[in-house]
Amino acid sequence: MNKLNIDRLLSFEENTDDQQQNIINYIDLHNRQKEDHEKLEEIKNQWDNLQNGFSQTEKDLSYITNVLKSLSQNQERLSKEYESLVETIPEQVAEITERTFRQDIVGLPDYALESGGARVISKLTSETYKLQPEGFVGILSNLLHIAIKPGRPPTEAIQPAVHAGECWAMKGSSGVLTLKLAKSIIPTQITIEHLAKEISFSISSSLRFIEVYAIHDIKAFSSEYITGNRSLVGKEKPYATLIGNFEYDPSKKSLQTFDLQRLITNPIQYIQFQIMDNWGNPDYTCIYRIRVHGTPVSLLQNNNNNNNNNNNNNNHDDGPLETEKLIKEN
Amino acid sequence: MNKLNIDRLLSFEENTDDQQQNIINYIDLHNRQKEDHEKLEEIKNQWDNLQNGFSQTEKDLSYITNVLKSLSQNQERLSKEYESLVETIPEQVAEITERTFRQDIVGLPDYALESGGARVISKLTSETYKLQPEGFVGILSNLLHIAIKPGRPPTEAIQPAVHAGECWAMKGSSGVLTLKLAKSIIPTQITIEHLAKEISFSISSSLRFIEVYAIHDIKAFSSEYITGNRSLVGKEKPYATLIGNFEYDPSKKSLQTFDLQRLITNPIQYIQFQIMDNWGNPDYTCIYRIRVHGTPVSLLQNNNNNNNNNNNNNNHDDGPLETEKLIKEN
Amino acid sequence: MNKLNIDRLLSFEENTDDQQQNIINYIDLHNRQKEDHEKLEEIKNQWDNLQNGFSQTEKDLSYITNVLKSLSQNQERLSKEYESLVETIPEQVAEITERTFRQDIVGLPDYALESGGARVISKLTSETYKLQPEGFVGILSNLLHIAIKPGRPPTEAIQPAVHAGECWAMKGSSGVLTLKLAKSIIPTQITIEHLAKEISFSISSSLRFIEVYAIHDIKAFSSEYITGNRSLVGKEKPYATLIGNFEYDPSKKSLQTFDLQRLITNPIQYIQFQIMDNWGNPDYTCIYRIRVHGTPVSLLQNNNNNNNNNNNNNNHDDGPLETEKLIKEN
Repeated sequence: MNKLNIDRLLSFEENTDDQQQNIINYIDLHNRQKEDHEKLEEIKNQWDNLQNGFSQTEKDLSYITNVLKSLSQNQERLSKEYESLVETIPEQVAEITERTFRQDIVGLPDYALESGGARVISKLTSETYKLQPEGFVGILSNLLHIAIKPGRPPTEAIQPAVHAGECWAMKGSSGVLTLKLAKSIIPTQITIEHLAKEISFSISSSLRFIEVYAIHDIKAFSSEYITGNRSLVGKEKPYATLIGNFEYDPSKKSLQTFDLQRLITNPIQYIQFQIMDNWGNPDYTCIYRIRVHGTPVSLLQNNNNNNNNNNNNNNHDDGPLETEKLIKEN
Repeated sequence: MNKLNIDRLLSFEENTDDQQQNIINYIDLHNRQKEDHEKLEEIKNQWDNLQNGFSQTEKDLSYITNVLKSLSQNQERLSKEYESLVETIPEQVAEITERTFRQDIVGLPDYALESGGARVISKLTSETYKLQPEGFVGILSNLLHIAIKPGRPPTEAIQPAVHAGECWAMKGSSGVLTLKLAKSIIPTQITIEHLAKEISFSISSSLRFIEVYAIHDIKAFSSEYITGNRSLVGKEKPYATLIGNFEYDPSKKSLQTFDLQRLITNPIQYIQFQIMDNWGNPDYTCIYRIRVHGTPVSLLQNNNNNNNNNNNNNNHDDGPLETEKLIKEN
Repeated sequence: MNKLNIDRLLSFEENTDDQQQNIINYIDLHNRQKEDHEKLEEIKNQWDNLQNGFSQTEKDLSYITNVLKSLSQNQERLSKEYESLVETIPEQVAEITERTFRQDIVGLPDYALESGGARVISKLTSETYKLQPEGFVGILSNLLHIAIKPGRPPTEAIQPAVHAGECWAMKGSSGVLTLKLAKSIIPTQITIEHLAKEISFSISSSLRFIEVYAIHDIKAFSSEYITGNRSLVGKEKPYATLIGNFEYDPSKKSLQTFDLQRLITNPIQYIQFQIMDNWGNPDYTCIYRIRVHGTPVSLLQNNNNNNNNNNNNNNHDDGPLETEKLIKEN
């Protein structure tokens, strides 16, 4: 509409020069105003976008500030936790170390430990390797008064010391070790230990394949072997049940605990380990320590009588005295 | 003012049509200009707000950037510290483990350790529990050649081995253990240790209530008891002072160090532990290890003579030889 | 140009009042338009800056968002790693503890360990300190039936027990200890251990300066000393090579492993430690444990024969039996 008015203005023939000049001025002003108006409109539109963008930015900033606050708090917390961890590690480690060692590393009662009351049944256990010093060694040992130690006895296998050589030197690469446990138990696990490979001169004397037998009737079992009718090492074992069958690999951890594959229902106090093979030494097998873990008969009786999970049995106790007491009681 | 001029323009009766048309155009332009001007002013105002907002945003961004930088640096530091912690843990642990074990866990000299020179005064110590094998056990043990071990002697309580059964089997649930310490000391703490509950068959044989007596005059003290006039276990102890009174709970830590409640002023070399009760076993009490910590007389003398905190005493030494030397010197 | 037009308008003499009024209105409008135009231009310019600033802000925000995302993810990762570290520390520590202790802390085979087959050559080893109980001690020990232990023998130095007093009490502050190692080896390191200072009564009896000699010909070496021609302690040692020379400081770690300064080319099985001085005790020196590490002859032979780094030697084994076997084989 304004466009039309301007055209009309310009078409007036009768307008004087001054009038015409005025009109030109109008048009000029008009155009400039129009131009600015358009610019203004454009700015107005962009303005809204910018405003929206800006209010989005403000929201973003507020969000970021919150995230930063939480990141910062988390970092502070992490940092404090970290510092306290670093500070408490020595204490923690000392405590765990103490606990670990006070629990003989494995943390399970060992019913095969000699000091706890277990015994080796010598008549049902293989021969110990014996050294025959000859020639130069014999002469030298006499000359320098060095005592030649015979191979260590089977009790080494149920004693805690496991320094180099503190093992039962079983003759050959297969044989049996028969134990009277400290208590009547349902065996659940065994632990086998060889000298750590890092400090071993060699690991070829380590046992490899081992079978575990629960002996139900020690008298009948004994008579089979003690009379000499039957070889100590063998597949068929009357009055006994094969409860586990394992391979021990000394190149892994020195201490290995195995779950027995078969759980017997009646507790036993006599157990036999049959070593089937070692890791290559043809002369002898070094057995550092074997442990037997399980559920003691006293605990089983409590469970049967009381029908609850009573884990303490204050009428019985560990120590070398316990074994015999239990037998008397039964 | 502009409004008035326009009104005046419109009131000119004598204005021609063209003139009137011009005036209308003016007014139109005027209004549009005015409108745009207002918009412009509004934008100017909002502009300042936006500018302020934006410069605040820029400040925020710069602040956020700094926070991010510091968060990022902290995170990197934490991450590196964490990695180095993870890397050094094995080394650290091995070192702490070594330190812990080389310091016998407690980290305090033990003046009651037999190998360090301490001795059990047998005449002033209760009886050891002895097993009487009967019936089936006696027969079986003969048949299978199992040696029946008598209860272990009181020296077990001052020896470091603490595997199952490696304890003094004191007869009954109360009794006394009297020691000659490795050195004359002012006792400050004692440590009691029972087999960890995790590997115990039962903890009923653990000692519970214990009293500690410092013996000032061993000769006079001895004669009271050795002549048989007085029972070893009792409330009144002439020539001795009650310096501590504790309850040991084996369901907590296996190793427990107690501060003595009374500090004596003159060093003593003879100490008596009176076990008042155990945790339920009526037949015997298993005492795995008792340690005595304190300040040795040599250190006290140094302090008195030199009036300084000299912690080294290079004229005296540990070992089984020390006890007697000290007595000679005094 | 517009300015000129306005001037021209104002100069028209013939303009009527109305005309003049119109002109004034024009000028006013013109000025206002011009003013607004300038403002608009200014805004336009600032607008571009703001737009640029804002799009920079948006880029910044997007960058910050990414940084936040990565910081947040890292933090979450750190936090999870941290939690898992905290959770696994006990397990880790127990494993390291086990490994450390199963490896006798040092983690190297000890060819001087008695249970591993090493022996003390008594004829080539200094005297043990012996206590002469006199006067009051003698009387008291009789009265109270305390056994006076003589100083412990040199075998204590090659046995693992290191509790207070479990050391070889060598007479005086200098002397020698001669060992037959468990195997023929090229010695590479030795480890010396004294009771940790934290639990020592004093460390003045600790050895300080020690020399290590590899004995090449034990027969010839022995005859030099056993016939009494030569003092056991001395600078010149025929048939032997000085391979190490160390100072042991018990105020540092209790366990210290030293690299031998000289590597011999032929393996030896006899080694002598010459203690030059201790830390101040004039009467005796307590030697808790000395270990010898090295490369065994069997491994050297394998390397020579096979020209490869075979670290296992399945034909030889540790234990007390090994020493003699090796000698026979050679």
